[in-house]
Amino acid sequence: MLDTAIRNATIITAGDRYIAQIGIRNGRIITIAEDVGPAHEEIDATGLWVMPGGIDAHVHLEQPQGPNVVMADGFESGTRSAAAGGTTTVMPFALQQKGQSLREVVDAYHAAAKDKCHVDCSFHIIITDPTPQVLGQELPALVKAGYTSFKVFMTYDDMVLNDAQLLDVFDVARREKAMVMVHAEGYDAIRYMTRRLEEAGHTAPYFHAESRPESVEREATHRAISHAELTDVPIMIVHVSGREPMEQIQWAKRRGRKLYAETCPQYIALTANNLKGLNMDFEGAKYVCSPPPRDTDSQKAIWEGLRDGTFDIFSSDHCPFRFDDPKGKSVEGARTSFRWVPNGIPGIETRLPILFSEGIVKGRITPERFVALTATNPAKLFGMYPQKGTIAIGADADLTLWDPQRQVTISQSLMHHDCDYTPYEGMQVTGWPVRTILRGQTIMANGAITGTTDIGTYIDRGLSAAFTA
Amino acid sequence: MLDTAIRNATIITAGDRYIAQIGIRNGRIITIAEDVGPAHEEIDATGLWVMPGGIDAHVHLEQPQGPNVVMADGFESGTRSAAAGGTTTVMPFALQQKGQSLREVVDAYHAAAKDKCHVDCSFHIIITDPTPQVLGQELPALVKAGYTSFKVFMTYDDMVLNDAQLLDVFDVARREKAMVMVHAEGYDAIRYMTRRLEEAGHTAPYFHAESRPESVEREATHRAISHAELTDVPIMIVHVSGREPMEQIQWAKRRGRKLYAETCPQYIALTANNLKGLNMDFEGAKYVCSPPPRDTDSQKAIWEGLRDGTFDIFSSDHCPFRFDDPKGKSVEGARTSFRWVPNGIPGIETRLPILFSEGIVKGRITPERFVALTATNPAKLFGMYPQKGTIAIGADADLTLWDPQRQVTISQSLMHHDCDYTPYEGMQVTGWPVRTILRGQTIMANGAITGTTDIGTYIDRGLSAAFTA
Amino acid sequence: MLDTAIRNATIITAGDRYIAQIGIRNGRIITIAEDVGPAHEEIDATGLWVMPGGIDAHVHLEQPQGPNVVMADGFESGTRSAAAGGTTTVMPFALQQKGQSLREVVDAYHAAAKDKCHVDCSFHIIITDPTPQVLGQELPALVKAGYTSFKVFMTYDDMVLNDAQLLDVFDVARREKAMVMVHAEGYDAIRYMTRRLEEAGHTAPYFHAESRPESVEREATHRAISHAELTDVPIMIVHVSGREPMEQIQWAKRRGRKLYAETCPQYIALTANNLKGLNMDFEGAKYVCSPPPRDTDSQKAIWEGLRDGTFDIFSSDHCPFRFDDPKGKSVEGARTSFRWVPNGIPGIETRLPILFSEGIVKGRITPERFVALTATNPAKLFGMYPQKGTIAIGADADLTLWDPQRQVTISQSLMHHDCDYTPYEGMQVTGWPVRTILRGQTIMANGAITGTTDIGTYIDRGLSAAFTA
Amino acid sequence: MLDTAIRNATIITAGDRYIAQIGIRNGRIITIAEDVGPAHEEIDATGLWVMPGGIDAHVHLEQPQGPNVVMADGFESGTRSAAAGGTTTVMPFALQQKGQSLREVVDAYHAAAKDKCHVDCSFHIIITDPTPQVLGQELPALVKAGYTSFKVFMTYDDMVLNDAQLLDVFDVARREKAMVMVHAEGYDAIRYMTRRLEEAGHTAPYFHAESRPESVEREATHRAISHAELTDVPIMIVHVSGREPMEQIQWAKRRGRKLYAETCPQYIALTANNLKGLNMDFEGAKYVCSPPPRDTDSQKAIWEGLRDGTFDIFSSDHCPFRFDDPKGKSVEGARTSFRWVPNGIPGIETRLPILFSEGIVKGRITPERFVALTATNPAKLFGMYPQKGTIAIGADADLTLWDPQRQVTISQSLMHHDCDYTPYEGMQVTGWPVRTILRGQTIMANGAITGTTDIGTYIDRGLSAAFTA
Repeated sequence: MLDTAIRNATIITAGDRYIAQIGIRNGRIITIAEDVGPAHEEIDATGLWVMPGGIDAHVHLEQPQGPNVVMADGFESGTRSAAAGGTTTVMPFALQQKGQSLREVVDAYHAAAKDKCHVDCSFHIIITDPTPQVLGQELPALVKAGYTSFKVFMTYDDMVLNDAQLLDVFDVARREKAMVMVHAEGYDAIRYMTRRLEEAGHTAPYFHAESRPESVEREATHRAISHAELTDVPIMIVHVSGREPMEQIQWAKRRGRKLYAETCPQYIALTANNLKGLNMDFEGAKYVCSPPPRDTDSQKAIWEGLRDGTFDIFSSDHCPFRFDDPKGKSVEGARTSFRWVPNGIPGIETRLPILFSEGIVKGRITPERFVALTATNPAKLFGMYPQKGTIAIGADADLTLWDPQRQVTISQSLMHHDCDYTPYEGMQVTGWPVRTILRGQTIMANGAITGTTDIGTYIDRGLSAAFTA
Repeated sequence: MLDTAIRNATIITAGDRYIAQIGIRNGRIITIAEDVGPAHEEIDATGLWVMPGGIDAHVHLEQPQGPNVVMADGFESGTRSAAAGGTTTVMPFALQQKGQSLREVVDAYHAAAKDKCHVDCSFHIIITDPTPQVLGQELPALVKAGYTSFKVFMTYDDMVLNDAQLLDVFDVARREKAMVMVHAEGYDAIRYMTRRLEEAGHTAPYFHAESRPESVEREATHRAISHAELTDVPIMIVHVSGREPMEQIQWAKRRGRKLYAETCPQYIALTANNLKGLNMDFEGAKYVCSPPPRDTDSQKAIWEGLRDGTFDIFSSDHCPFRFDDPKGKSVEGARTSFRWVPNGIPGIETRLPILFSEGIVKGRITPERFVALTATNPAKLFGMYPQKGTIAIGADADLTLWDPQRQVTISQSLMHHDCDYTPYEGMQVTGWPVRTILRGQTIMANGAITGTTDIGTYIDRGLSAAFTA
Repeated sequence: MLDTAIRNATIITAGDRYIAQIGIRNGRIITIAEDVGPAHEEIDATGLWVMPGGIDAHVHLEQPQGPNVVMADGFESGTRSAAAGGTTTVMPFALQQKGQSLREVVDAYHAAAKDKCHVDCSFHIIITDPTPQVLGQELPALVKAGYTSFKVFMTYDDMVLNDAQLLDVFDVARREKAMVMVHAEGYDAIRYMTRRLEEAGHTAPYFHAESRPESVEREATHRAISHAELTDVPIMIVHVSGREPMEQIQWAKRRGRKLYAETCPQYIALTANNLKGLNMDFEGAKYVCSPPPRDTDSQKAIWEGLRDGTFDIFSSDHCPFRFDDPKGKSVEGARTSFRWVPNGIPGIETRLPILFSEGIVKGRITPERFVALTATNPAKLFGMYPQKGTIAIGADADLTLWDPQRQVTISQSLMHHDCDYTPYEGMQVTGWPVRTILRGQTIMANGAITGTTDIGTYIDRGLSAAFTA
Repeated sequence: MLDTAIRNATIITAGDRYIAQIGIRNGRIITIAEDVGPAHEEIDATGLWVMPGGIDAHVHLEQPQGPNVVMADGFESGTRSAAAGGTTTVMPFALQQKGQSLREVVDAYHAAAKDKCHVDCSFHIIITDPTPQVLGQELPALVKAGYTSFKVFMTYDDMVLNDAQLLDVFDVARREKAMVMVHAEGYDAIRYMTRRLEEAGHTAPYFHAESRPESVEREATHRAISHAELTDVPIMIVHVSGREPMEQIQWAKRRGRKLYAETCPQYIALTANNLKGLNMDFEGAKYVCSPPPRDTDSQKAIWEGLRDGTFDIFSSDHCPFRFDDPKGKSVEGARTSFRWVPNGIPGIETRLPILFSEGIVKGRITPERFVALTATNPAKLFGMYPQKGTIAIGADADLTLWDPQRQVTISQSLMHHDCDYTPYEGMQVTGWPVRTILRGQTIMANGAITGTTDIGTYIDRGLSAAFTA
């Protein structure tokens, strides 16, 4: 007998939309049928859509931020917020600090996550110190051990890699078959602009956006693509913010490059105007993230890319800092210059509802494409498919039940994160996740967290589909 | 108890790839599970891939060709050949001749198909005489009756519509929500080139290709796209042959137009050189079709489009004429000028194996994309989904079992059509359909036709996903 | 001794800018030097720019308009207005009406021009009835006789050529080495839109613009380019109005096609909003021309094209109809539908000042580019160079002296045409022609016409540089 | 009375082509006329074309190359070779070495040039050490003193600037109105490829080409363009070698950027195959330059760019090293790896004949465009116009008389440089300079040098037209 049966479900996958029942045993989907037979637990999904649980492939949790700043969410609150938003797997970053061995980094991050996760998780590794030891021995060993993706930064004082280092990392990635995620913004260009803006007295949070215009992201995107072409390796450009970097990606894809791209809610739901706050004041700091939100034309472009396949995945880039907190956005110096405002906004819980409402309900993307962008593609591109990312026999029973007609006004009071604001306060959406199921267990129902922090497990991963498909 | 169980199947859909069992009752898939339980008929699919039965959305069967020429295949031989090639649904064209009412056309075509079909079928209507009566009354009535797609020609003496007529047909299509397929080649340009070539004594079959270069197809494609933009209607450009028309489609898609595109095996497996035959002789007539095959750069472009979503469907444009037959390619006059060679080649049986081998096996497209192009997308775009086009609960049990490693040399002796040649003679492919199942019944096994001509039924269709998704 | 010496001139040509004196004898420039020596007539050009006299290669004068409408300007007033605006050569169109022989058309037009011209002129021939006689005998004879350019229309009831006719005309043009000017708007598309707009009750002059959107011009442009590619002939797309048709031209030029393009003042100084008049009233009729002015983005695009060489020439498309006149804009029916408003606006006199002010003074184009667009290129492309279009030894002494700092507010009271309004009323410009010299004789000085109507002569032309350069 | 009269000349400028006489006094053109009157020296130019003397804006003479290598040409032999090839002004580079003050660099270079020049010259400054002192004080002072252009390198061990330095230099250039020439190849990418090639044992000269593919040049070009966009400064991308970097330039120009581009003879007359020598031997070293010649498709692209205005100037990048010389191409190590082969080839003398023959004679560009590319545009863009670069009143009488029909086979025996080979050995050209006139004095006649090394003077320059036009 089944553990759980979901009846009367409108099942949506990356390829299909149909009505059936789902039968679950031991945390896995073992039958989908007109009638799956008896089960211990009955879930009636009449009127609901059943989609694969969301995979958020780009979140920052409990990531070290230097001596003065603390990220608002650790594993517990971050994964709680994820579960509430319909997400069943998160992929945070294990950050190498200069001088650290990667193994040490990964071990410490596992320790931090232990018994703290409401959903499953798996780590990308951020490489900031690509020594010969790291490149020659640690990375190959970690890829073999299932850490099949890493991330590199083309900006930020403590993380930026120069071109020689990028090429070396890409070279290892090709040999070891790892997916490299690239934060593409030009370091020197941002420093140049920051200096000019500060010299002109333009220090409000809004000038964060002016300090890194689209041309700076576009240039770094072109550069990363070129380095990937030279080393012949697939890469993923993450958090693409606007038309100009997107056009670089389209150009490279048309040339047949194995290139992948990600975008995020902030680039369809916010603009640089949000950074102006009320009359250019510090409220704008709530929207400071990198790359910054652009303008309505770029939003339009991003939608084109979400629809036509330019973008492969849609993640939150959840990177929360409390606003009214001297360890957060209000850190010392932040009011004297945008330069000191911590970069990042929360979004792990609102990612799926925003895309559902603005995308599916407004007719910009199909439900199937929603599933591909938020679950199936991340699973495939990060080596978790078919265990994760779809509704099919043998897959983990990670499911989100959606009420496609529920109307909700997003507000901080609804959120489950430990941040003290949401940048989407007041936004009205149609469609809301009403139940989240992780490996057969309901971890959220009607907004209430029903799971525990020992339910989430670490997912060992195989190779990215970029190397196998 | 199930009628049929397929065990140990590697199931491939447009979105997924996994191993499971499929349970069939009353011609439909009613369960997919690790174990579907007992069944009257057992099919062991160990080592095989199970894909949705192919849908060939562009075939010509028993279509009137004027007084001197007869198409090689009627419904019986055409659908027999389809079944042998892994296809379970075909969509031939009901051709309106000048002065005919569309209802009359459709009724006559139904009569011709009756009890002659090895596979299911559904008709598109070719409109050649868009009178006010046809546009104002007949078309709306037929769309409501399930004939939700039609085709128009921008060339051919007896079929060409001028721009005013195209605009009128598009206008009706928008109002009635019908999908218009467009044969995009410029009539006057072809006539101009034909005259010049004949005046220069260039009359061999090869000059068919020179009489309609890519620029002529590109121009008509741009024109059709512009008319669709003006009338605000989705259309499908069929049998796109090369880079130049394809670039027009990519441009329009990037601009957000609801535009769909089809390509065919001849544009990835043949080039204009094939029309040269042996030393510019009449052998070349075997490859005369419109648009003509182009060159290797265009083949490369077509592959890019198949991979990146420029093309939505992949059809055969099966249009067979016997070569050594005065009612076929060797009709009176054909040896005096390419102008008189009947346009069209057979391909209903080889469509899927060619795409499988050249596409999946050679790593150009994924298996999922193969399914999307050959079954799921045609089903969706022509209003047959989810009854047809996928492997999901409730769908017709139309399935093709593939041996992904079988090596076959294509030859006329293997073919089941009534044409006397195949243009792919001698081509070696890897991967071959070893069983075709139509609504639960095996209609082909190991190359032998096991179904009967009363098994195929007519499929009434709903609206295209172009209007609903 | 010289007839005339111009001293202290800042001479500007398509290639150079320098200070010198110009010496004229017998109507031609025979010396340019630091000191040209004594002369009968002294002209001091201190502080002025001396440019080649403007060539307006696209004007309509005394062109038949059917029974109810009369063009506002004949040769006398049209060339008077040209002279006042710094133009020394105009190229009006000799219009073939259906059934007319071209020789007859040309003879009649010569008769109309005789002793009526304040400036030199030369005719293009409009072909509306390309019979075998016209194509096979008349055109070749006229090209040999110096009528080396003609124009075809892709729209307008009495003038439209279909694709077969266009191809035939292009074919003759290639053989005879004539330049074909193409009015590229799609006839059937405009009729379709006009019908829909009228059915919706949208009949104000403004809807003229909506009846022929950019996509309609773009489609016809692409079609003309494709036909020219097929026939392998250079053509010129005239009066390009916006970004979309312009992009087609850029695409073709990048592919190496010998393609030329023209734009006009209305596409940089007006927008479709002008057609709204005051509250969508009939005032908008003053701005009805085809193609219609577009929007500010298209204006921006046109400037890019003027600067970067996409456009080769800048003409007025002077086509004047009196506004308050039952034989003009206010013809019977015009107030019931935009369909009946005569298409065209005056502009022969304001062409150069508008480009000077908006282009040179605002830094969008260089003075050299101004000369190329308004004089040198038209001369070269229409076979009048080096007799016309430059300031060089041996050339006709056609010169315009500009005061680059004169500020003028354009108004009907300043105009010398016989139209009763200017569409640029109230526009402020910097830079104004203060003297116009035709073959050594001053025909305008400080706004006063000083020449006579027997001074203008007809210019026999050689082949276009498109065939010789 | 005139010093010199040139009679019966077909004069060609960037804008015009006409027949006249040229009168010279005190080294300047003071009259152009049908008859300039008597002169002390008579030159009959019947049958010849008279063009502005060539300006070669990119040559390396006597430039320090480290301890082991010596450039083949100093000022004397280099300018002798220039004069022989029809060039009257050269612009070599004054190279700052790390730690040097720019004033010191310039003074030393003036000393080297003194009394050594057969033609006029003016210096660009290469900046390799942009210290605050250099950027804040030296550069501004030198720009004011007439050194209005400098060059930066994005590669080469001792010269590469990083992005921060590039941005700083661009920033100064905007403020001071100087033209920055950019050598755009990616340093780290080249080092990466060099290491990989050497590790694979690919060390022959040919692999120089593989070590810096087009994508590396394209990336650096995009990067430089982006930096120029950010700092809002015009720049010139020099020696563009192929389609990919060129497309970046076209894209930026279409967007309205003030961007300039240069290409060179090696990119239309050589390909990477030349570097293979005879069977991959050291002969290939004769063709080692950076960027390397590409392929025939890139040659085609470069021609498109020369014709359509993508390229503004055409220079030699003359950078000669003797082949059979341990201080030249055969330096120690060069046979063990391409890495050690000095980069550069001679070409100052063959630049104009190659462009004349391959461009004008083969119908790819007009004579006017030839003049613009080789003389007028360099003069304008580097602040020497109208003193240099045209044939107009007041300009220096720098003239080249061409026999447009002279057929010559290029060979080392014809050359006047001190290099021991020409990379164009055996190339047949039509059109040859038969007389070079510098400020009125004939410095080359029929291949014989008739001038002296004290004739060439240094040209103080004004601002680039990029800032004034």
